[in-house]
Amino acid sequence: MSTKLVRFGVSLEEGLLVKFDKHCRANNYEDRSEAIRDLIRDRLVKDEWADTKGEVTGVISLVYDHHKRELVDNLIRIQHDHGGAIIIASQHIHLSHDNCLEVIVVRGKVKELSGLAFRLRSTKGVKHGELVMSTTGSGIG
Amino acid sequence: MSTKLVRFGVSLEEGLLVKFDKHCRANNYEDRSEAIRDLIRDRLVKDEWADTKGEVTGVISLVYDHHKRELVDNLIRIQHDHGGAIIIASQHIHLSHDNCLEVIVVRGKVKELSGLAFRLRSTKGVKHGELVMSTTGSGIG
Amino acid sequence: MSTKLVRFGVSLEEGLLVKFDKHCRANNYEDRSEAIRDLIRDRLVKDEWADTKGEVTGVISLVYDHHKRELVDNLIRIQHDHGGAIIIASQHIHLSHDNCLEVIVVRGKVKELSGLAFRLRSTKGVKHGELVMSTTGSGIG
Amino acid sequence: MSTKLVRFGVSLEEGLLVKFDKHCRANNYEDRSEAIRDLIRDRLVKDEWADTKGEVTGVISLVYDHHKRELVDNLIRIQHDHGGAIIIASQHIHLSHDNCLEVIVVRGKVKELSGLAFRLRSTKGVKHGELVMSTTGSGIG
Repeated sequence: MSTKLVRFGVSLEEGLLVKFDKHCRANNYEDRSEAIRDLIRDRLVKDEWADTKGEVTGVISLVYDHHKRELVDNLIRIQHDHGGAIIIASQHIHLSHDNCLEVIVVRGKVKELSGLAFRLRSTKGVKHGELVMSTTGSGIG
Repeated sequence: MSTKLVRFGVSLEEGLLVKFDKHCRANNYEDRSEAIRDLIRDRLVKDEWADTKGEVTGVISLVYDHHKRELVDNLIRIQHDHGGAIIIASQHIHLSHDNCLEVIVVRGKVKELSGLAFRLRSTKGVKHGELVMSTTGSGIG
Repeated sequence: MSTKLVRFGVSLEEGLLVKFDKHCRANNYEDRSEAIRDLIRDRLVKDEWADTKGEVTGVISLVYDHHKRELVDNLIRIQHDHGGAIIIASQHIHLSHDNCLEVIVVRGKVKELSGLAFRLRSTKGVKHGELVMSTTGSGIG
Repeated sequence: MSTKLVRFGVSLEEGLLVKFDKHCRANNYEDRSEAIRDLIRDRLVKDEWADTKGEVTGVISLVYDHHKRELVDNLIRIQHDHGGAIIIASQHIHLSHDNCLEVIVVRGKVKELSGLAFRLRSTKGVKHGELVMSTTGSGIG
């Protein structure tokens, strides 16, 4: 993909620009272009996730009680037998005496990722789980 | 608010622009400026809703079984006694023999709107409810 | 669908039940069963929307400046030529001198609904648009 | 918090139960109780995040081009100067020659977490960022 910088003009109402500049300052954007690029990339990542055929990257977070008998074994077994989704890495954090937070970075089709997330989530002892959109970066320039 | 059109330049990587142009075509945008304005306005509406003090406009959708005894009375009573939120209009649609969909346009602080939405939602006989962000338009130029 | 009431038992940790009861009181639920039914129906509506083949009901909200030349004609034209999605009803609200809020109740496959929502949204003069999940009610008992 | 198991009864329409059982099977739930507990805990985590005063746990994901001059230094500087949010752990993954995915586990008030996420997100070179709800587990039994 070409990373050569190009430039184009945007026209909009003066009142809208005033409000957008206020938004940029409030969020520490150096300039409007960086803020616009973020908006564009966010939109394209949403497009990636709306496309059922393409490959996406996501992050699954799980909170569980590691004392539950066989839970950790079950989670590992599911992660090794997950029908398509590729697990890139995982990280384990001790939140308290009982609770762990596990963060799992996965790649695959949206359906495979949400299937894996739901299967981990429904395991006995898992208290919370979320799948969040991210990106390989290849689709956003 | 000034609706005079102004113009500014955006710089970005050529590869990102190619993908954005593809997105614009796929979604029937006449030109990039209109697509960029949409992205900016979406962002500003999210900012409106993140501000707990400001006034926002939202839409509450409810699905309920109108045969349930006293349900319609209860819903009307709640709508007339809703602690701050202003109900602008509502529309009632017959989905089937049993089920109605009611769409209620409301204005107020986020907390007032979500409080009202939850109170309607928790009423016996109401099967589904959602509150969706919209805007008075005054904050987006 | 059978509307005969049946009963089943749920076991959970005492601490979790205490917190759930607090949630029920805070949201005016008459009893736990009604709150549990709401959680189940919310989950089933999300399942309906995750199924790309089934038919769902949704609500599109649009904010636009009705002074824009030909905008209202364009919106009507798009609503009459929308590739599959069925428009059940729409309601028009005057927010201010310039801005209108239009709420459109639609039925169809998820892809048809989101396609229609995006096409309306990308029309010049439309400032904001959202599509929110609802349900025909037939899939949630 | 008490982890003693208690039991209560739920009444609902037979047709709704049939659909819920189908949902449980499709998602590998061992029994209804586990599925109900998940629904309750999800709801309570959403309540935690709606409470602007309480402490929550979240996960920030960032995708960035590590070749950008000074980017990594800037991200570390922001993580060390983040007005309240506590960074518990972070993990760095090489997605491709150019792109990295960083997953950061954070604890704090919702406003502090979203402020930090937005500040990281708006840094030049960061291509995508999301903040996802999780929980310390203490509020969900």
